[in-house]
Amino acid sequence: MPERAFELWMHDIRSRTEQALERFLPAPAIAPARLHEAMRYATLGGGKRVRALLVFAAGELADAASQPLEVCASAVELLHAYSLVHDDLPCMDNDVLRRGKPTCHVEFDEATALLVGDSLQALAFQLLSEGRIAQDPALQLRMIALFAHAAGSRGMAGGQAIDLACVGRQLEVEELEFMHIHKTGALIRTAVLLGAHCGSALGERALERLDHFGKCVGLLFQVVDDILDCEASTATLGKTAGKDAANCKPTYVSVLGMAGARAKAAELEGEALAALGIFGPSATRLGDLTRFIVARRF
Amino acid sequence: MPERAFELWMHDIRSRTEQALERFLPAPAIAPARLHEAMRYATLGGGKRVRALLVFAAGELADAASQPLEVCASAVELLHAYSLVHDDLPCMDNDVLRRGKPTCHVEFDEATALLVGDSLQALAFQLLSEGRIAQDPALQLRMIALFAHAAGSRGMAGGQAIDLACVGRQLEVEELEFMHIHKTGALIRTAVLLGAHCGSALGERALERLDHFGKCVGLLFQVVDDILDCEASTATLGKTAGKDAANCKPTYVSVLGMAGARAKAAELEGEALAALGIFGPSATRLGDLTRFIVARRF
Repeated sequence: MPERAFELWMHDIRSRTEQALERFLPAPAIAPARLHEAMRYATLGGGKRVRALLVFAAGELADAASQPLEVCASAVELLHAYSLVHDDLPCMDNDVLRRGKPTCHVEFDEATALLVGDSLQALAFQLLSEGRIAQDPALQLRMIALFAHAAGSRGMAGGQAIDLACVGRQLEVEELEFMHIHKTGALIRTAVLLGAHCGSALGERALERLDHFGKCVGLLFQVVDDILDCEASTATLGKTAGKDAANCKPTYVSVLGMAGARAKAAELEGEALAALGIFGPSATRLGDLTRFIVARRF
Repeated sequence: MPERAFELWMHDIRSRTEQALERFLPAPAIAPARLHEAMRYATLGGGKRVRALLVFAAGELADAASQPLEVCASAVELLHAYSLVHDDLPCMDNDVLRRGKPTCHVEFDEATALLVGDSLQALAFQLLSEGRIAQDPALQLRMIALFAHAAGSRGMAGGQAIDLACVGRQLEVEELEFMHIHKTGALIRTAVLLGAHCGSALGERALERLDHFGKCVGLLFQVVDDILDCEASTATLGKTAGKDAANCKPTYVSVLGMAGARAKAAELEGEALAALGIFGPSATRLGDLTRFIVARRF
């Protein structure tokens, strides 16, 4: 029952990530209590944790130990959680529902939500720099640089800016891809590399293939997200469904049509799996995860 | 003419910091262009650069080279600039004037200002991790951890949250101090330590004294800020004067009275200068800078 084993693995990684985040987030009793409560609200108890799963699955390629993987998975999930909190703010997507709960600024207030995002980003960097997560501190510095690049104006935050600039415009597929490579892709790609860097050194060629895998999976994730946003209901997604269309945001479905988007997903899936070829059986988990990302229903 | 020499030194450090920031900020031609333009708008061409001056002055204690000091000074100024952009947003202080110019969200828009702050924070961490700024990479990791702690919920962002919670309340001086140790103090303290860490290793006792100096100067800076906010005009400050009183925010002047605030400043100045005692002449610049912070008129 390989599928069942994969389900159990996902369950295990999710609960380890949740426990690690519980531990790394400041306790709500510590001042400023309301901010810490809101940081925990925005991060804990929800989400598919796809980025954490990618960190751990990539760690298997390099026989990485559990402790550094937990740190990297937490950092990546903290950065992701911060981006959701800021994206949901009234001046951005102005959304009220996230992971089946009121968004952070609705549950608390806008100023707190702003500071939650700011603090979660800082905490992610604190985790990556405080403990030892790579055998060589110089490599750990490169991991932090990679992460910072993925977070910033030429990564996730920049992708969000491109996204804003695209509202109401008809895009070519290349422009849409450029946006998503930044907005969602950069962090997913970095999650994969961080996981691998936690273990024994892979060769340059292997890292290059792994990075290509990460790039394909990052886009694949977004294409599937667009398809689901168009098909699923708000209850299943745990966030407002159909909001991209309502907000006149270009999506793979609006640009390529539903059949085109499905074909694009199949193509990216094939390319991602092909990139794993050189790793042999140690990449089984990354392969399973890729197929899971395509088949997911939420 | 020691005063003249100090003026020239400040001028030199400010222009070196400005040039370094120019270099480190992405060019506006790079996509997303509007975001990069706004990041440059919020960071370049203004500010007293007190934090950068502290980095360089502390660097003199440890014979630090210029290049790592430029990196640390830039990172500290980027973090400070991001905090101003977010603090000025409508959901926070809702301010329209900063450094004599319209605030970032007024000149651009709220969503862009949000992303500017997010991106500046990421860029600060990118700078600290990308190049070599300490002789030992393990020390460089500790510097990043220090910086992350100063930025986050138990540092600057947390101080801002405490500040929000204090609006309209009458505070005890200890509560006010607790807020400012986080809000302004944490980053100033870290600027001093980063500067020293760029050079040859100081002993544990020296670092402890230097950290105490940083703590005193951080508070001193805020006490003087509160006095100036009460006394000076908007034109001199380059930001809205008297806004703390207008916003019912507690200040050292509102809590201690003007005479009490001045006495507090004198006390902190004395304590800061005393902490420099063990360093001898290598701390001359830090001493001059302390006196400058007290005497400044903007």
